[in-house]
Amino acid sequence: MDARKARVLDYGFIELVDFMGGDARIVEAARICYRSDGGDDAALIRRLVTRGHNTPIKHAVMTWRVKCPLFVARQWLRHRMGTFNEQSLRYCAARREYYLPRGVPLIDEYVAAMEAAFDTYEALCAAGWKKERARGVLGTAVYTEFIWTVNAWSFINWLRKRLAAGAQYEHRCYARAAGELWRAAMPLTADAVLGDGLAAGD
Amino acid sequence: MDARKARVLDYGFIELVDFMGGDARIVEAARICYRSDGGDDAALIRRLVTRGHNTPIKHAVMTWRVKCPLFVARQWLRHRMGTFNEQSLRYCAARREYYLPRGVPLIDEYVAAMEAAFDTYEALCAAGWKKERARGVLGTAVYTEFIWTVNAWSFINWLRKRLAAGAQYEHRCYARAAGELWRAAMPLTADAVLGDGLAAGD
Amino acid sequence: MDARKARVLDYGFIELVDFMGGDARIVEAARICYRSDGGDDAALIRRLVTRGHNTPIKHAVMTWRVKCPLFVARQWLRHRMGTFNEQSLRYCAARREYYLPRGVPLIDEYVAAMEAAFDTYEALCAAGWKKERARGVLGTAVYTEFIWTVNAWSFINWLRKRLAAGAQYEHRCYARAAGELWRAAMPLTADAVLGDGLAAGD
Amino acid sequence: MDARKARVLDYGFIELVDFMGGDARIVEAARICYRSDGGDDAALIRRLVTRGHNTPIKHAVMTWRVKCPLFVARQWLRHRMGTFNEQSLRYCAARREYYLPRGVPLIDEYVAAMEAAFDTYEALCAAGWKKERARGVLGTAVYTEFIWTVNAWSFINWLRKRLAAGAQYEHRCYARAAGELWRAAMPLTADAVLGDGLAAGD
Repeated sequence: MDARKARVLDYGFIELVDFMGGDARIVEAARICYRSDGGDDAALIRRLVTRGHNTPIKHAVMTWRVKCPLFVARQWLRHRMGTFNEQSLRYCAARREYYLPRGVPLIDEYVAAMEAAFDTYEALCAAGWKKERARGVLGTAVYTEFIWTVNAWSFINWLRKRLAAGAQYEHRCYARAAGELWRAAMPLTADAVLGDGLAAGD
Repeated sequence: MDARKARVLDYGFIELVDFMGGDARIVEAARICYRSDGGDDAALIRRLVTRGHNTPIKHAVMTWRVKCPLFVARQWLRHRMGTFNEQSLRYCAARREYYLPRGVPLIDEYVAAMEAAFDTYEALCAAGWKKERARGVLGTAVYTEFIWTVNAWSFINWLRKRLAAGAQYEHRCYARAAGELWRAAMPLTADAVLGDGLAAGD
Repeated sequence: MDARKARVLDYGFIELVDFMGGDARIVEAARICYRSDGGDDAALIRRLVTRGHNTPIKHAVMTWRVKCPLFVARQWLRHRMGTFNEQSLRYCAARREYYLPRGVPLIDEYVAAMEAAFDTYEALCAAGWKKERARGVLGTAVYTEFIWTVNAWSFINWLRKRLAAGAQYEHRCYARAAGELWRAAMPLTADAVLGDGLAAGD
Repeated sequence: MDARKARVLDYGFIELVDFMGGDARIVEAARICYRSDGGDDAALIRRLVTRGHNTPIKHAVMTWRVKCPLFVARQWLRHRMGTFNEQSLRYCAARREYYLPRGVPLIDEYVAAMEAAFDTYEALCAAGWKKERARGVLGTAVYTEFIWTVNAWSFINWLRKRLAAGAQYEHRCYARAAGELWRAAMPLTADAVLGDGLAAGD
């Protein structure tokens, strides 16, 4: 995988498809208020982040592409920031692809249940059920894919919440990967938010 | 059920918990721009709706409580308007309650699959899986519950999209019930949007 | 003035026109996630405020009516949260009403300039200028009036920024008055945000 | 001026500073829902625009820089979409630069009033008034400058409202210039929205 894409969990990934503005735009937007030019960009960005002066930060915008289990996608959309377009199981048949946790008991029973659900799904579709209704038997461990456009400030809010110790492990894996990809694109802002490291461990 | 609550599908409901402002506030907000007093309220509201002058309409706000299958809730949240708080399957154990479509073949196979998924879910939880992870086997036909606060303009956008012929049947049932409850609360605006009737049929 | 309206500056005011939900709705929205009932409401709200768990707080909504100098209204609208409807100087003739600061030198020169601007404005209108263009000569000390509907979380953000020591004095006067009126409507949330007092002094 | 910047009114301009995604991203975002590849991009975009399927369109984002009279900026910010950072007259002294309409009577009186206001402004500042308060004498014909980041769908809403016959002439000049610059950046979407031409005349 290249510098803008990271594999996450067993079949998932997160990719920084595009970004606009970056650190430089944030600095420019902050300075338009004051007609000032000089000064230390890193210190200015740190002040904006620390004090929650979020408007300049919102001029930096990113587009991400994500493949993740549906239960992670559901949490993600609940943040309600930015624009999402998700693969639709109304129009597309579901692929037999689901998340398999590691190091847990009863994994065979889990797999059997997921496979049985897909068998039923396919039988229902074959019997004439609409896909939009048949999907009701598929568990939320099924993978989905979406594209997410978000400004840097909303991204930071998502990142902080999903890096926190209380966040669900699977979501935290995406947040960690996103944080590293983001750092390559917007190093000054990422340092101001994340410091030297990302939250470690489970 | 009372005038503010309607049963939808087999186990679902939609309830207008509260509303603020209503038709009168929309009229007041529109008139503040012009310092005018007189005139026909119904005609004024019709003009605002028809021309998409949406700011005054946003001063009317509603809070709804909804119980619906998870696949309906997912579409609903994708509208990204207003504020949602949903029951969490990270913290609460899932109830064995799921949507059962009528008039479809293979209904026994469907029920068996849903029941088997719940059996597995309970076994995984008993074996020490976190609830947030075990829920991955539960299909999106499972019922969920949420509270939704939304301004009237965003509500109208949701309503129009979900009453449309292309909307999923199950979601349309909620839109129809919401439309009728809304008409009792905001008759002038509802008439301007819906006319005399709601979209009929499946 | 009654318990929901406060005079601010020389000709201005702020009025809590309506509110929905209040402390109780915030508690209810927070509890839907957990299906819990008991516990101390004040402590729950304090936790939500402190940890920035803002979704439940957004189910409480308020409508305010404000009369303030245009330069205050400009700052207010820049917060970009909630819905605003402002009196329009495209359609209404401006009233000869403007803010007069106290305890400043050259007050006569200031008044003379404001009066001269109104004289010119009226002459331009009489000569056939569109009002929307003639208003270009009127200073931003002129009073305007607007109606603002906002959820409690966005209101809290506005309040904190405009109570801060760095905020403009005139805007801070509105924030202080709003804070007191708000405390009467939502005492638990107001205490969690404001503590025992409002920021004092200029 | 280059292909991305246009002069507007006497001292104003509008510049397309940056854009992300463009027509291609809209197509990509629309197709992720359906896992489809082929088909006519222009026809797809026309369908999205016509039917108000706005989510894919929001993945295209633009940053504009604008210099305009304050009364135009006030209308602009009222659209409440996207992110604005405006030059602040709390921190910067106002420049003696204001909009001069053409073809109107009493232009000398207008100029005299604007100049007198600046004289007073400078005298008040010199006498120790805070700039944030002294600006109260300056008319809204004074030029201001801001940076605006907005997704394509919100931009389209602004554009349509400000190209309409009822829009204020001065604002319409900015909308027309923005429409032409936009067409060069996103030709398929611009054609779907604007057709072959922009609204002409005053």
